[in-house]
Amino acid sequence: MYELDTIAAISTPMGEGAIAIVRLSGEEAFRIIDEIFVSPSGKKMQDVPSHTIHYGHIVDPKTEQTIEEVMVSVMRGPKTFTREDVIEINCHGGLVSVNKLLQLVMGRGARLAEPGEFTKRAFLNGRIDLSQAEAVMDLIRAKTDRAMNVALGQMEGRLSKLIQKLRQEILETLAHVEVNIDYPEYDDVEEMTHQLLLEKSNYVKAELEKLLQTGQQGKILREGLSTVIVGRPNVGKSSLLNSLVHENKAIVTDIPGTTRDVIEEYVNVRGVPLRLVDTAGIRETEDIVERIGVERSREVLKKADLILLVLNYNELLSQEDEQLFEAVKGMDVIVIVNKTDLDEKIDLEKVQALAKNHPVITTSLKEDEGVDELEEAISSMFFQGNLEAGDMTYVSNSRHIGLLTQAQQALEDAISGVQSGVPIDIVQIDLTRTWELLGEIIGDAVHESLIDQLFSQFCLGK
Amino acid sequence: MYELDTIAAISTPMGEGAIAIVRLSGEEAFRIIDEIFVSPSGKKMQDVPSHTIHYGHIVDPKTEQTIEEVMVSVMRGPKTFTREDVIEINCHGGLVSVNKLLQLVMGRGARLAEPGEFTKRAFLNGRIDLSQAEAVMDLIRAKTDRAMNVALGQMEGRLSKLIQKLRQEILETLAHVEVNIDYPEYDDVEEMTHQLLLEKSNYVKAELEKLLQTGQQGKILREGLSTVIVGRPNVGKSSLLNSLVHENKAIVTDIPGTTRDVIEEYVNVRGVPLRLVDTAGIRETEDIVERIGVERSREVLKKADLILLVLNYNELLSQEDEQLFEAVKGMDVIVIVNKTDLDEKIDLEKVQALAKNHPVITTSLKEDEGVDELEEAISSMFFQGNLEAGDMTYVSNSRHIGLLTQAQQALEDAISGVQSGVPIDIVQIDLTRTWELLGEIIGDAVHESLIDQLFSQFCLGK
Repeated sequence: MYELDTIAAISTPMGEGAIAIVRLSGEEAFRIIDEIFVSPSGKKMQDVPSHTIHYGHIVDPKTEQTIEEVMVSVMRGPKTFTREDVIEINCHGGLVSVNKLLQLVMGRGARLAEPGEFTKRAFLNGRIDLSQAEAVMDLIRAKTDRAMNVALGQMEGRLSKLIQKLRQEILETLAHVEVNIDYPEYDDVEEMTHQLLLEKSNYVKAELEKLLQTGQQGKILREGLSTVIVGRPNVGKSSLLNSLVHENKAIVTDIPGTTRDVIEEYVNVRGVPLRLVDTAGIRETEDIVERIGVERSREVLKKADLILLVLNYNELLSQEDEQLFEAVKGMDVIVIVNKTDLDEKIDLEKVQALAKNHPVITTSLKEDEGVDELEEAISSMFFQGNLEAGDMTYVSNSRHIGLLTQAQQALEDAISGVQSGVPIDIVQIDLTRTWELLGEIIGDAVHESLIDQLFSQFCLGK
Repeated sequence: MYELDTIAAISTPMGEGAIAIVRLSGEEAFRIIDEIFVSPSGKKMQDVPSHTIHYGHIVDPKTEQTIEEVMVSVMRGPKTFTREDVIEINCHGGLVSVNKLLQLVMGRGARLAEPGEFTKRAFLNGRIDLSQAEAVMDLIRAKTDRAMNVALGQMEGRLSKLIQKLRQEILETLAHVEVNIDYPEYDDVEEMTHQLLLEKSNYVKAELEKLLQTGQQGKILREGLSTVIVGRPNVGKSSLLNSLVHENKAIVTDIPGTTRDVIEEYVNVRGVPLRLVDTAGIRETEDIVERIGVERSREVLKKADLILLVLNYNELLSQEDEQLFEAVKGMDVIVIVNKTDLDEKIDLEKVQALAKNHPVITTSLKEDEGVDELEEAISSMFFQGNLEAGDMTYVSNSRHIGLLTQAQQALEDAISGVQSGVPIDIVQIDLTRTWELLGEIIGDAVHESLIDQLFSQFCLGK
């Protein structure tokens, strides 16, 4: 265990709520709570069993002022979130009293925790590795069930175990090669070493490929699919937006009994979190191009993961429509021909030709027709139905994807090195590099600055 | 105990946080948690001791999907907040997973709690009375230390005890009178009864008066002092606003490490919570009158508890200034003559004459002079320094103040009845009415609809 000071933070979101929690972690946690907590029976938290809950009051020992009526949860390390002694003070949740409580705790020697510092300690004290720590934050930020499952799996160590297994393979191979080089007792040592290297490298490479194949989906699940709706005025863009939002409900508001406003417009389409870009613009002016100008629109389009291009079934294809097809070339596009409740005036064959291999869906959003087909198209475009397998290991984090890609490259270097007969000790360097890169995913031998930066993205009190 | 169903709610504020809590209360709480909670050791929460904490996972028994990694707090009634069995599920706080957890619990037979329903149960099950329950919400909403102290005192039952004592006095008096009427064995029975009635009624009345005297202060502490800054353009209104805000910090932002925006502009001036009205207007246009028109300004002024009327030391008094004095007649006003760093052009004697008995403070906000005097004036205008006595019983709630006033009136009727010789049984009615009115404060024999309405103002999960 690291020798660390005692930290404290408010671990519940700010706002008026029924319960607020001030959390303490570290060697001084018990001393501090016993200085400020008064139980009706006079018992001290130092003396009570671990993992028990105690009713009482927080009293400022200097002024003898009662600050709050609380329940204190006592958890002795190492069986805690941080592996240190942890005290959670569960109080009524008024801003003034919670603040006073935190100040009091800090006045007794605790330091205000940095964002993510509790989780960082869980990592530093070896309870979880870096990818598990990252998954804690992914879980909190998950926008859909599927994203939650991916985060939970990673938090439970599914990715870590796979990475550790692959690292172990590499390590054993390296050891084997080392022995063969040092004791070349047989004639065919060189050939055997080459064969072993190729075999193992190809095996690890295949595993990395499988993992990286989950990367695009994992990343979408984690970050949402940035989606832009384009089309000429009056083709039904805002109807499409409303239809997607209403059919699926905006994600963050989907909690009974809350009146919280939507912060970002996310919708959950069959498990795919769509992040609808610039929806305010669409609602206000019915036209993103009109509102932000052609140049900026192109930039917005370029950054999108998915374009929903809307056409009017009841009008001839215009030059503007064709320009839109031009603008979205090379991107993931679904073409929506809307207003099938009106007469067919559009040339559907021409639409199909312009759309090339992108799906074309006909809808009457007014009559609520075609929305199912559209959702099916969105879902199958990104997930080909293989996401249902809940026990798959996903990689979802850009940092992990980057490291896996680099590791794969180093492996390829090793493989082509063996094949072109470069000296074994050069091949060893590439393999060692692969081993190190994989280690960075789980936080083995990573820079302290990287660790600080990763945890700083956490929320306060976590 | 009432026979009540099992309720559940998310008891932490909505938002991304380190910890979220789903709370369950009722007979089914243990059955429900044991259906969805999987501990590594396989133990059941039915079997563990009360007030203990357990690590494990929430798993949907239908799909076998893991929903969250949690700590479960087990508290068996009657030693709980509601006096019922209470389970608190402490989880990582992602919106999707917390929502799923709540849905799961509801699918197993819990009902979504109404706002304040946990506290309502504490009341219905006799753990706290109505004034204590109301104090729970006051504590959460407290804007200053002093408001927090008043709420804590009331929550601990200080007001309840006083009310109970007075009711007991009335009840004993009524019993005594009843006996005297039924057994008039002595000649001077009538005189003795009259004397007893007068004595007791006067005693209770004096106590009610003392309590009501704390009402204005208590109400200000609880609700804040609605404050309006008025003055002609360019006299320094926004400097005054900034000076008050900066010197004292806005209340809700005064929590280290948070970036929460200010919702209402409250400032804490020596324990007095000032609610600054229409500060946006002042900041934007430097003139509330200009912005919302003369008529509406008068309305805003009328609703204010405190007017800060700002004049310019460097200008002659204008007709507008005099109209302002006219507009705020009969209200609590502090006159501020600002810009003493410039030459004196204003006629201070005339200002004093216009201000009558209202305080006049000279300031140079630019040089940060006179702000202390202003704060002192605000504080002493409302608190005459007697708030420091922390062990006083305060009444702060408009409902309580209303009932106390009615009770006092009923007592006065009784007293004047005795004095003018009305029959004793009529006087008894007035005394009984006083007893009932006091009972409503602590929730003795109040209408169910009132109870529902009071608790509906609570926050969710409380």
